[in-house]
Amino acid sequence: MCEANAYLRQSGKDELLLEMVDKVLPHEDGLVLEDIFGRRKIIKAKIAELALVDHKIILEKEDN
Amino acid sequence: MCEANAYLRQSGKDELLLEMVDKVLPHEDGLVLEDIFGRRKIIKAKIAELALVDHKIILEKEDN
Repeated sequence: MCEANAYLRQSGKDELLLEMVDKVLPHEDGLVLEDIFGRRKIIKAKIAELALVDHKIILEKEDN
Repeated sequence: MCEANAYLRQSGKDELLLEMVDKVLPHEDGLVLEDIFGRRKIIKAKIAELALVDHKIILEKEDN
């Protein structure tokens, strides 16, 4: 399985938000993260960076 | 390896941009895609959607 862990980057630190993320989908002005079990988390953020071989999705709060 | 293929979504169609993408990094007002061999492609787009179990990164042109 090629899922990744989603982290929220704030003040230079990456905080784990959700593990084993499969899908990331747009949702109003934020994102829906869905893990491989179908569990969902909604967050007002955007995708900043991916490092898939390291299984990392880095999210950041929107500027506005 | 848990790389994915990057597609550009335009007019509802997904066009393959780069295969075996490892990293996606911010670059000025666009993105740098880097494949598992270190080959890079720069594109003025943003990440719209991820489907990692399907090995898909969907990009979209910026609105402005």
